[in-house]
Amino acid sequence: MIHTDLCIIGAGPVGLFAVFEAGLLKMRCHLIDALPQVGGQLSEIYPQKPIYDIPGYPEVNAQDLVDNLMEQAKPFSPTFTLGERVDHLAKQEDGSFILTTSDKTKIHAQVIVIAGGLGCFEPRKPVVENLELFEGKGITYMVKNPETFRDKNVILAGGGDSALDWTIFLSKVAKRVTLVHRNETFRGAPDSASKVFDLANKGKIDLILSANLKGVSGNGVLDTVTFTDKNKEEIKIGADYLIPLFGLSPKLGPIADWGLSIDKNAIEVDTRDYSTGVDRIYAIGDINTYPGKLKLILCGFHEAAIMMHSAFKYVYPDQKLSFKYTTVNGVNSF
Amino acid sequence: MIHTDLCIIGAGPVGLFAVFEAGLLKMRCHLIDALPQVGGQLSEIYPQKPIYDIPGYPEVNAQDLVDNLMEQAKPFSPTFTLGERVDHLAKQEDGSFILTTSDKTKIHAQVIVIAGGLGCFEPRKPVVENLELFEGKGITYMVKNPETFRDKNVILAGGGDSALDWTIFLSKVAKRVTLVHRNETFRGAPDSASKVFDLANKGKIDLILSANLKGVSGNGVLDTVTFTDKNKEEIKIGADYLIPLFGLSPKLGPIADWGLSIDKNAIEVDTRDYSTGVDRIYAIGDINTYPGKLKLILCGFHEAAIMMHSAFKYVYPDQKLSFKYTTVNGVNSF
Ligand SMILES: Cc1cc2nc3c(=O)[nH]c(=O)nc-3n(C[C@H](O)[C@H](O)[C@H](O)COP(=O)(O)OP(=O)(O)OC[C@H]3O[C@@H](n4cnc5c(N)ncnc54)[C@H](O)[C@@H]3O)c2cc1C
Ligand SMILES: Cc1cc2nc3c(=O)[nH]c(=O)nc-3n(C[C@H](O)[C@H](O)[C@H](O)COP(=O)(O)OP(=O)(O)OC[C@H]3O[C@@H](n4cnc5c(N)ncnc54)[C@H](O)[C@@H]3O)c2cc1C
Repeated sequence: MIHTDLCIIGAGPVGLFAVFEAGLLKMRCHLIDALPQVGGQLSEIYPQKPIYDIPGYPEVNAQDLVDNLMEQAKPFSPTFTLGERVDHLAKQEDGSFILTTSDKTKIHAQVIVIAGGLGCFEPRKPVVENLELFEGKGITYMVKNPETFRDKNVILAGGGDSALDWTIFLSKVAKRVTLVHRNETFRGAPDSASKVFDLANKGKIDLILSANLKGVSGNGVLDTVTFTDKNKEEIKIGADYLIPLFGLSPKLGPIADWGLSIDKNAIEVDTRDYSTGVDRIYAIGDINTYPGKLKLILCGFHEAAIMMHSAFKYVYPDQKLSFKYTTVNGVNSF
Repeated sequence: MIHTDLCIIGAGPVGLFAVFEAGLLKMRCHLIDALPQVGGQLSEIYPQKPIYDIPGYPEVNAQDLVDNLMEQAKPFSPTFTLGERVDHLAKQEDGSFILTTSDKTKIHAQVIVIAGGLGCFEPRKPVVENLELFEGKGITYMVKNPETFRDKNVILAGGGDSALDWTIFLSKVAKRVTLVHRNETFRGAPDSASKVFDLANKGKIDLILSANLKGVSGNGVLDTVTFTDKNKEEIKIGADYLIPLFGLSPKLGPIADWGLSIDKNAIEVDTRDYSTGVDRIYAIGDINTYPGKLKLILCGFHEAAIMMHSAFKYVYPDQKLSFKYTTVNGVNSF
């Protein structure tokens, strides 16, 4: 069991900045994100795109902003559980919470901060019979730890950046990598695509184009994957792993079942402190809604600052919050 | 008369960022500040100090932040009236406003944004008889345009950075500069102080220490300034100008008389859009108050973004606001 003052669900820009604001008030944070990396939409959807409306940055690359937010949070030593979705929330008698993730990790926290953005990024799954029978038994939708695939036969399916990047990376780790894509051209970066064609020409990977995923089979664990090629001929390939990378789409997911007041996939909050109406649970960033709400990064930053001043009373019930400018107080004060 | 969509009172960090947010919605801004430079408290009180809680900046020098905000606002070509205080606000029949400054500059605007911070920075005046008789007739508390002093006899009084910096600067412009200070040492930067001592040693300026301002006289315009030295002896100096630089302190000032709802020197606003209750007048940044308010720069940024989406309807009554991410739309779109 992990113990923390605040558990932040979602390590997007808003969750990351919340760590800093909590830190100024001497509160420690643990962050959980369903994605294997921090940064939320910025790192997952548009890492190399410029953002122009971060105050004080005429232009900033999305991934650079995430890196800077990590750097800013660093003095307060946040801890992370990545690649796991928060599924359950259980209120304890003393008012605190125990959270449980999809991998059964348990976190005990005094206060819950939901910074879940548009929701959990869930993989888009191919429509194939018996798929779920092999999930976690050879089929996986995300590369959390590349070492899992060392010396294995791995099939990747997809045509975007993730499929290309992981094909290139795993070609150095796996016994054999096969990339299957339903078109002749790739959606991902041209540079990565040409690397992949190059690997195939050199015989370092198998590349099957204009083919569609048709079936999966095995005895308890995945064993064989079937495709149809452009002539509708079946191709059967033996495999330890199948990684369909057809993109991620955000879903509010389990958060919808926690008894919070939800309006259009967002959590209704009180703008005085961005509390949810359930004691000790706050919601900040894209996941909340209130009259006038704008889904902007800079708005989430403000919500994080205000929210922490309200959460303080639960972590330090006997202390009076004394508020000092960072210019005057610095940030290394604990 | 200056015509603009929005007139922003106060060119502190929040007023400056408001220009950018207005610009994204194709609204033009004119800014007015009582100080001769932009940046509000940051440039006036702590330009060289680091700030640690600007999101995405683990550390940023206050003046650098102001410079970056100016750069960010630049694509939208804001215009400025600096060194003038907004004194009057007159509602027109069509709902727009005409503002009048202390120097009688008039600005016609559809919407007023008060980003006045802790209020207008007003000079701390020495307590000397008849001082006000010569204000604007030889006595001035701020150097707006150094050229005013070319080839004139100028006396500066004070011991802080402003007094030191302007003494150094004006020594190259004025006919003769005299700096008078009531102590033997200066409060300002040691580096500037040693430059001033150096200028005095070389006979380029007159330096009178441990002396107090006693009186001013003249026939309609300033003519003679009187000091007492440490032995209580009177010193009389002929002068075209006297510039007492004893610091600035913020005062809510004329804003208090505009019929807005004021609580503890701040304007009460509705957090849905940071409107003041008077149609077409908004208040953002340190100058506003609402339940949970924190006087932080990052909060003012959020308020500016939200507020502009509400002001849009007054500038473009027939248009529907279409909101796009800067990453998608860019900023050079008009
Ligand atoms: C293409 C594009 C361009 C954009 N451009 C701009 C722009 O220019 N300016 C701007 O201000 N905004 C822009 N945005 C919006 C901006 O990205 C969002 O406002 C921002 O990401 C919100 O941050 P957040 O931290 O609230 O949520 P997110 O970034 O969405 O992060 C939330 C995280 O929570 C995780 N999560 C959710 N539920 C769970 C759960 N149950 N368990 C574990 N983890 C969970 C998710 O996996 C996700 O990583 C843009 C968005 C897109 C898609
Ligand atoms: C020493 C110090 C350290 C600080 N450290 C931090 C920090 O670390 N983090 C943080 O977030 N904040 C900090 N602050 C607070 C921060 O400076 C303010 O929150 C910020 O300046 C508010 O910006 P603003 O634009 O609302 O107002 P201001 O910066 O106060 O600017 C308002 C401007 O409006 C002008 N004005 C007012 N009335 C009129 C009028 N009638 N006519 C014309 N002009 C007018 C004033 O002259 C002024 O220039 C600190 C403040 C101080 C003093």
